[in-house]
Amino acid sequence: MDIGIIGGSGYTGGELLRLLSQHPEARITAVTSRSRKGQKVSDTHTHLRKICDMEFEDLKPEEVASRCDIVFTAVPHGTVMQVMPELLEAGVKVIDLSADYRLKTGVFEKTYKMKHTDPRTAVYGIPELHPEVAEQVFIANPGCYPTGASLAAAPLAKAGVIERAVFDSKSGISGAGTEPTSVSHYPNMAENIQAYKLTTHRHRAEIAQELMRLDSNLKSISFTPHVIPSVRGILTTAHIFVKKEMSEEEVSEIYRNFYQDKPFIRLIKGIPMLGSVRGSNFCDIGFEIDRGSDRIVVISAIDNLVKGASGQAIQNMNLMFGLDETTGLWTPGLAP
Amino acid sequence: MDIGIIGGSGYTGGELLRLLSQHPEARITAVTSRSRKGQKVSDTHTHLRKICDMEFEDLKPEEVASRCDIVFTAVPHGTVMQVMPELLEAGVKVIDLSADYRLKTGVFEKTYKMKHTDPRTAVYGIPELHPEVAEQVFIANPGCYPTGASLAAAPLAKAGVIERAVFDSKSGISGAGTEPTSVSHYPNMAENIQAYKLTTHRHRAEIAQELMRLDSNLKSISFTPHVIPSVRGILTTAHIFVKKEMSEEEVSEIYRNFYQDKPFIRLIKGIPMLGSVRGSNFCDIGFEIDRGSDRIVVISAIDNLVKGASGQAIQNMNLMFGLDETTGLWTPGLAP
Amino acid sequence: MDIGIIGGSGYTGGELLRLLSQHPEARITAVTSRSRKGQKVSDTHTHLRKICDMEFEDLKPEEVASRCDIVFTAVPHGTVMQVMPELLEAGVKVIDLSADYRLKTGVFEKTYKMKHTDPRTAVYGIPELHPEVAEQVFIANPGCYPTGASLAAAPLAKAGVIERAVFDSKSGISGAGTEPTSVSHYPNMAENIQAYKLTTHRHRAEIAQELMRLDSNLKSISFTPHVIPSVRGILTTAHIFVKKEMSEEEVSEIYRNFYQDKPFIRLIKGIPMLGSVRGSNFCDIGFEIDRGSDRIVVISAIDNLVKGASGQAIQNMNLMFGLDETTGLWTPGLAP
Amino acid sequence: MDIGIIGGSGYTGGELLRLLSQHPEARITAVTSRSRKGQKVSDTHTHLRKICDMEFEDLKPEEVASRCDIVFTAVPHGTVMQVMPELLEAGVKVIDLSADYRLKTGVFEKTYKMKHTDPRTAVYGIPELHPEVAEQVFIANPGCYPTGASLAAAPLAKAGVIERAVFDSKSGISGAGTEPTSVSHYPNMAENIQAYKLTTHRHRAEIAQELMRLDSNLKSISFTPHVIPSVRGILTTAHIFVKKEMSEEEVSEIYRNFYQDKPFIRLIKGIPMLGSVRGSNFCDIGFEIDRGSDRIVVISAIDNLVKGASGQAIQNMNLMFGLDETTGLWTPGLAP
Repeated sequence: MDIGIIGGSGYTGGELLRLLSQHPEARITAVTSRSRKGQKVSDTHTHLRKICDMEFEDLKPEEVASRCDIVFTAVPHGTVMQVMPELLEAGVKVIDLSADYRLKTGVFEKTYKMKHTDPRTAVYGIPELHPEVAEQVFIANPGCYPTGASLAAAPLAKAGVIERAVFDSKSGISGAGTEPTSVSHYPNMAENIQAYKLTTHRHRAEIAQELMRLDSNLKSISFTPHVIPSVRGILTTAHIFVKKEMSEEEVSEIYRNFYQDKPFIRLIKGIPMLGSVRGSNFCDIGFEIDRGSDRIVVISAIDNLVKGASGQAIQNMNLMFGLDETTGLWTPGLAP
Repeated sequence: MDIGIIGGSGYTGGELLRLLSQHPEARITAVTSRSRKGQKVSDTHTHLRKICDMEFEDLKPEEVASRCDIVFTAVPHGTVMQVMPELLEAGVKVIDLSADYRLKTGVFEKTYKMKHTDPRTAVYGIPELHPEVAEQVFIANPGCYPTGASLAAAPLAKAGVIERAVFDSKSGISGAGTEPTSVSHYPNMAENIQAYKLTTHRHRAEIAQELMRLDSNLKSISFTPHVIPSVRGILTTAHIFVKKEMSEEEVSEIYRNFYQDKPFIRLIKGIPMLGSVRGSNFCDIGFEIDRGSDRIVVISAIDNLVKGASGQAIQNMNLMFGLDETTGLWTPGLAP
Repeated sequence: MDIGIIGGSGYTGGELLRLLSQHPEARITAVTSRSRKGQKVSDTHTHLRKICDMEFEDLKPEEVASRCDIVFTAVPHGTVMQVMPELLEAGVKVIDLSADYRLKTGVFEKTYKMKHTDPRTAVYGIPELHPEVAEQVFIANPGCYPTGASLAAAPLAKAGVIERAVFDSKSGISGAGTEPTSVSHYPNMAENIQAYKLTTHRHRAEIAQELMRLDSNLKSISFTPHVIPSVRGILTTAHIFVKKEMSEEEVSEIYRNFYQDKPFIRLIKGIPMLGSVRGSNFCDIGFEIDRGSDRIVVISAIDNLVKGASGQAIQNMNLMFGLDETTGLWTPGLAP
Repeated sequence: MDIGIIGGSGYTGGELLRLLSQHPEARITAVTSRSRKGQKVSDTHTHLRKICDMEFEDLKPEEVASRCDIVFTAVPHGTVMQVMPELLEAGVKVIDLSADYRLKTGVFEKTYKMKHTDPRTAVYGIPELHPEVAEQVFIANPGCYPTGASLAAAPLAKAGVIERAVFDSKSGISGAGTEPTSVSHYPNMAENIQAYKLTTHRHRAEIAQELMRLDSNLKSISFTPHVIPSVRGILTTAHIFVKKEMSEEEVSEIYRNFYQDKPFIRLIKGIPMLGSVRGSNFCDIGFEIDRGSDRIVVISAIDNLVKGASGQAIQNMNLMFGLDETTGLWTPGLAP
């Protein structure tokens, strides 16, 4: 497969390059960056020295399309919708890592407070929840928080047992991107934890869309994100209030059945943690029943840049091209 | 005041020594440690070199009592109850930093799975919630998580508006003590976050006791703790579900009224963070209304070793001796 | 004393405010910041909420001088020299935390590659090395690296035994200031260590000036700085090559004699570390003889923002006003 | 190749398992751990869940040998020498990750203060410095610090220009192993840096042995290690004092010639950093001339667990079996 990356200078771009360098069927034929045109990719992504000797180019969408079988768009939301029509018309497959096509158009416009210039339907690319990914030419790759939250709660949503779900998520700071800001300033982030957008984070809409698709009666979905002094990873603590108390065995069986044959989901007896998934495409899930209460605490752990972004995008690509979904992704995390 | 510390080698002991070294009315006359008897205090607490030139002693309770006006007990739960009768009989005031006297005896025995050998009533020493601290000779100093959680939710509990409260707390690892463990092992904790005791942490009982004292109808109180890669601090994210939607102004007024004249409570417009309270006795509190929902997100930030332990103990001591509660404690945190 | 701070929004400004809030003789009467004029100081320095209720002002030097007995200048080098003449003419004492007056004018111009518009002699304010601080009205407060390096090597320099000195210094990232940069970006700094300006850091000139003042024959002085994933502190590893091998007792005696009656120097048997000095004005020093070799390894640890900047500035202020140098500074560090 | 790992529960064991899981020619047929016999490997190395479904066994050396073509010994020094005779007599190839066979026997006994029960000659397995690795059946895999230090200085040593070399090394804490200790206790390591064994670290002997092999006149080699608040990586700051000043081009050419055709050495113009090599087998090297002085500062960066241990071991294995040395190791690091 010949692969193009539009927007290769950020973390998700770098992660696509890192992962695809290990993919047996992948060849990268274009990496764009307007601001770094002509610079070596490995001057930006220094871990790729000797691995990737390409240069960033500033290419028009049709130029990228002409060189590729599939294109990953890894530029900010609002930007992708400007190039998508040309890409798709050129007949290339596309996986969009931005937020532009994840939500129904009306919800998108309300959530992102902008007019959508290219309303279009895309499949939401969590392959464990959307087997129809395999037949698509165009995928909206999910947000990092929604991937962790949806995977944690989907089995219970599908079972129709959720009364109320509170997602309290903790993310590594790489989710905020490569641009230095006050929040990412080391003295501000070290020895700290920063809750933000306590009730208004845009990813709530994606979580709600996915879970209400599985249970149309589900109404009460809350989401509060935090950044922690870690670089990678999202730990989601899902406080799930159920309609009636459930036993550990009942819940276990729901999860086992829901996720059987899903290679990247690891259901564990203990409590998931970031250290087990760092750098990998796995999502670890564990839970505990709050006895004598209507609460189940489900914990999921992912690497925000892999299963929460670029790894999941490659998983989608594999399926779109009829490959085993684990191709090039069956690698353990880096621990310690 | 002549002051004794039983169990001076741990973090709360060290923090008592650090804070009391700046207290104008305090003189430390005894610091005990069985295992470090005869060693210089500053060999253990190296930041106290030149500040504290005492040695650890191995003293019987009555010996400590004979030298002091007040004694802080900073040894593990289950140990304090063995020395408390002698201390109190000797006529010395006591502030117990362990868990032995925080809960009603029956609840204690069930929670800590041990027989209480000295059942006795103590006032629970959060001075902002217990003005009766001032008249006591014996105080049970609260746990760190319950201090953060109770202060976050108390005004709403008192107002009788809470339907359900979910406390999702994030603590620095110093709360686990000075003993190296697998959890505190740097390669395990760095770049990680570890949820633990998802539904069964003992501090839940303290939180419930405090909030149900303020609102006897309140039933649904959930608590899940996490340790984050920080040394100090507890950030509590309180997801409070209320009986009916409330406006920002209503909530603000409840908090302002409840905490007026409480010097260590800082109600802020933004979102509290650990970096603002590190090393200080302040508790920063902020909130946000989840519009169109029954949820209010309240965030509190404390230093677990100060307001969550030794600082609050000294605040209690000040009140018990008729001093202004801020004496020796009116110091800003250390930032960055 | 009425005190003014020119440039109060940075880390050294915040640290002056933090430390002076605990100083029994200090009253802050002016804090300037051009960009934050009219804002509350505690909106920038959130740890000072309720401690400092001043606002930043945009004041001319003579306005500051008219309100103060002493002024601290905490603005970038090149800026201070523009206001110094007016300040000094107004008869106010000044302690300059910038680099403008630390070096002989010629050396300054060569090192900082700028013309000095106000050539003037100032005493270099390391009080342990410059007892003449007490008689001054104007002090050049030293750089953070030079404070750690000079204090580590000064006794041996004075003894005339050094053949060659290699300072390999490791600093917390707060030394780089409040402005977010690529280096201070959390994902770049975490799990990393960054050597920089391997041979050309400007602070080398200060170190050389101080040590060659003590031993005019000393020629070979090397300095290489690193930033480590810590917020505060500088650990200096001084590899000192001596003219002839020395015994541990000889070296100990040289240090003991040199630093006797210096309250903030703590000579220790073990190896100094940042955790013992964080937030305090102490400088911990230890050493080890490399047996069978001509090398002595001396380690010093300071808090870069306290003994390396604002704390030392206040120590200088105390001496200039005839106070005990420890006034308001005799506080232990924050550990853990 | 069928591969055995004696001592698979530590970090180097885990890293062998992680890396070999990606190696196209490798099959692991035995992993031993006395204390964890019968436990799943992935209960210890949780990042290997679903990747490795083996169990730890407690096997005699000949049992391991009978199942394998090559054995990695990853148990503490002093232990390996007890099993080595049996392993080698069984005709299996061995790569020893301990210190037992790295040094000449006499030097070993003096350095490690123990009698060697199996004196034997082994090739020191830095393949870039020892092309004879390819013909061996038995390799002593180097220490982590010596790998970083030797690679940094070897070209200059070979060129015979070094007068004096001072290695100031900074290591991630994973080098200290999986066992929680006071040094690895998070509150002690965070926001800190700990110099240790200032003049007496055992790895100095390895560095000296390697460099003096390249330049028998070289005498003055100093080494001081530090642990920094990072999990992985060693940054070595080599202060090299040369016999006469050299130009940047001279030095560049020496390094280019020395390391041409060495795939894992990346000579860079800037300053190497841990973030570029984390998780990979690369060694990044850069340098700067201290103009007007006899010093050259060379910086090398490696991942202590990969190029400093298990990755280098696999590189040695590849060469011993006639494979390209990059087989299974040509993977970029994990960044950010």
